[in-house]
Amino acid sequence: MNIIALILAGGTGTRLWPLSRKNTPKQLLALTGNRTLIQETCRRLWTVVTPDKQWIITSKELYDSVKHHIRLLREEFHQDKSEEEYITVMQEPIGKNTAPAIFWAAQRCRHIYGEDSILLVMPSDHLIVGENEFIDTLKAGIEKAKEGFLVTYGIKPSHPETGYGYIKIENNKIKSKTPYKVLNFVEKPNYERAQKYIEEGNYLWNSGMFAFHVGTLIKEGLNLCPNISKPFNESDPFNSSQINNSYMKAEANSIDYAVMEKTDKALVIPASFGWNDVGTWKSFFDISDKDENGNVITGNHINIDTKNSFVYGQERLIATVGIEDMTVIDTPDALMICPLDQTQRVKEIVEKLKIENSKTHIEHKTVKRPWGKYTVMEEGLGYKIKKIVVEPGEKLSMQMHYHRSEHWIVVRGSAKITNGDKEIIIHENQSTYIPKATVHRLENPGSMSLEIIEVQCGLYLEEDDIVRFDDVYGRRSS
Amino acid sequence: MNIIALILAGGTGTRLWPLSRKNTPKQLLALTGNRTLIQETCRRLWTVVTPDKQWIITSKELYDSVKHHIRLLREEFHQDKSEEEYITVMQEPIGKNTAPAIFWAAQRCRHIYGEDSILLVMPSDHLIVGENEFIDTLKAGIEKAKEGFLVTYGIKPSHPETGYGYIKIENNKIKSKTPYKVLNFVEKPNYERAQKYIEEGNYLWNSGMFAFHVGTLIKEGLNLCPNISKPFNESDPFNSSQINNSYMKAEANSIDYAVMEKTDKALVIPASFGWNDVGTWKSFFDISDKDENGNVITGNHINIDTKNSFVYGQERLIATVGIEDMTVIDTPDALMICPLDQTQRVKEIVEKLKIENSKTHIEHKTVKRPWGKYTVMEEGLGYKIKKIVVEPGEKLSMQMHYHRSEHWIVVRGSAKITNGDKEIIIHENQSTYIPKATVHRLENPGSMSLEIIEVQCGLYLEEDDIVRFDDVYGRRSS
Repeated sequence: MNIIALILAGGTGTRLWPLSRKNTPKQLLALTGNRTLIQETCRRLWTVVTPDKQWIITSKELYDSVKHHIRLLREEFHQDKSEEEYITVMQEPIGKNTAPAIFWAAQRCRHIYGEDSILLVMPSDHLIVGENEFIDTLKAGIEKAKEGFLVTYGIKPSHPETGYGYIKIENNKIKSKTPYKVLNFVEKPNYERAQKYIEEGNYLWNSGMFAFHVGTLIKEGLNLCPNISKPFNESDPFNSSQINNSYMKAEANSIDYAVMEKTDKALVIPASFGWNDVGTWKSFFDISDKDENGNVITGNHINIDTKNSFVYGQERLIATVGIEDMTVIDTPDALMICPLDQTQRVKEIVEKLKIENSKTHIEHKTVKRPWGKYTVMEEGLGYKIKKIVVEPGEKLSMQMHYHRSEHWIVVRGSAKITNGDKEIIIHENQSTYIPKATVHRLENPGSMSLEIIEVQCGLYLEEDDIVRFDDVYGRRSS
Repeated sequence: MNIIALILAGGTGTRLWPLSRKNTPKQLLALTGNRTLIQETCRRLWTVVTPDKQWIITSKELYDSVKHHIRLLREEFHQDKSEEEYITVMQEPIGKNTAPAIFWAAQRCRHIYGEDSILLVMPSDHLIVGENEFIDTLKAGIEKAKEGFLVTYGIKPSHPETGYGYIKIENNKIKSKTPYKVLNFVEKPNYERAQKYIEEGNYLWNSGMFAFHVGTLIKEGLNLCPNISKPFNESDPFNSSQINNSYMKAEANSIDYAVMEKTDKALVIPASFGWNDVGTWKSFFDISDKDENGNVITGNHINIDTKNSFVYGQERLIATVGIEDMTVIDTPDALMICPLDQTQRVKEIVEKLKIENSKTHIEHKTVKRPWGKYTVMEEGLGYKIKKIVVEPGEKLSMQMHYHRSEHWIVVRGSAKITNGDKEIIIHENQSTYIPKATVHRLENPGSMSLEIIEVQCGLYLEEDDIVRFDDVYGRRSS
């Protein structure tokens, strides 16, 4: 029976602000090493689901970034595979919670692999420790899905967590990897109630991971939530205008509410691998290695008598004196300071930023692009200064701006530059000037990174003043 | 009788790090408005001492900056006076505490005004509230100095402060502006002892301000500390090589230890104006106006449930959640976080930075110059990017670099540029290139600020690669 993985990557990260931004949510952060959480989610599943059967579903805003992260994963592990043979990135026309995404994917499964196939559903932004146990647990659920069940995975709770929903079962001597009937799903509890759940022993954390028998899921969907599943049942899941239409009609809901809480086909598989949804800075601190003072420190830090604190910095120097149980998250354009036990309140900051129409919750100062990255170093009236890094062999799109001229100075490497009808190569300590309304392209023909300083001059300097003629990365937006 | 003010401005600020740096100590910060503490110190004295009788004494390192601040003061208040008729800046060849500086100044007084003159001595970096009371208090001391006494000013203590030294007198019903005999000077006490001083009522804070009868000071100096005063007695106070020599011979000591604690000519004038030495961030917080949550906030701040805290920021966004009694001081290249009651420990950070050979305690990212300022935006291998702002009518020195080329792009205003034997004027969105070993000069001929982006390329990019041919500000160092 075919197994397909649907990786949910539409989340807009606000809870790890200021490191996460709308354009760089949690799944696109490399919190624990060189790979981002979404890359790790894909990689971890390969022993069960090959890359060609992994589908990521994300939003229009994140689509280009997700594609980029997947391209890097392919370059790292599967240079032999073409983009077409690799992980598919599906773009939702609108975010309507998990149920519409899952019913769309289920229809795609049915069309390609038939109703007797398994749809594994997985968040893209969780941390998993103990990958063998993870795989064995997944497989135990897949076995029950093959029998026609709708399987959810529940994590054995280690402490009375108030940040998660719970799944209640009858038995209180829970065995890992063993299927149980779901009694009911329970909302995030308060602390007393969470303690009670732990004592009673028949509650699991709701992980948001599922293994569905596709035929059963579609049938149950039509019975239990036809206003979500029917629009997808009636359209061609590969026709984007039909899918747009289905999304318009479908009610926004989670698969838990729409199906799992109502169906009698639900089973839960208890899991005992290490799991963390990195929902707050505190939860990330809890699973990180501490130094001898109980601190987790990243970056350029001077420590005077600082204890049990989480200091995340980058280039700027951070000095902390006599603080305890504190979170300090520093990025080039924003700094957040909060006691560790209040990091769930970071969302209040983001709410305020939205109201104030600040960009600081949307994007970072350094913006990643498929060809490299750029950093806005300064903006003033009539000018903007960027540092642009182009990776070896990469090129920006052939483009033109109506409202700005650009001065380029190479400070590292060599640049191949198309400037109107001329093509030149310039090196370190050389510069060129792109007048406005001139078609141009920047390319790194070398084998080391190209770094240029760009000084834009003009009265309108936003990213949307770009006319794109040709782009090797097939980008539709900027 | 002539009154001369000696303003001590050699202090190297570490206690208000990261806002104060070695090159920008406390006296050069504008903590309470648009003027720096040293400018305020000069201005406040004008009703007693005219600018031509004000002498500032500072170090070689701070000399150019102090001159610049005094020039701005003259432009603000005394455009009719020439530099020669204005506040004198004396440069110490080496810092040896207050006594040598005061004996040098005393000899200058004696040579110009005779022994029957008054030398007022004043720190440059204190905050004073209640200027009329301040002036009246000064005058009361000056009257006694005219009679031949060595007067110190003691602040009536408002609380048991452990950060100040105390002056003990006999009487415990202290009247302001009334001279008392000094019983003795007391070192910074611990808290219990400080409480006792307050209860006993015959102790004053040692403010570091004095009014000396010059003849008496010199005579007492020769009696009580000849190893400090004699080298100055024997040299021409206007001959810099003789003064260098005197400094080499003189013992380093404070005027309190060297003279005031030993002489029977000492009087103290109690003062009841508001006084603060801004010795810590806490002391600055204490005298600042608070908002309704007890906070003192500067900069771009998002406040979620923050109380009794001191947040000082600039352009970067700072979000604080649920913190209390905390100090957060943010500058472009360094951030400091510390509970308010521990801000005296900031010096521990600076000690660590010295050991680590970090530049972060020495200078700011934005460096002020007589012609404007520059900000190092980024440094990389082989390049450095600066934003340079030249004020209207100002010009940099005619100069040359052996090891770097410079690309200049005007982003605001117009620049007159000497580049080898050519002179050009370029405007916004125009650029030029200064090859290495080419004599050049940058000037703002316009009436608005000139802003240019400079990209330096070369293998050695330090400030000391400069050969200066002509400088309108008469600078001897860079």
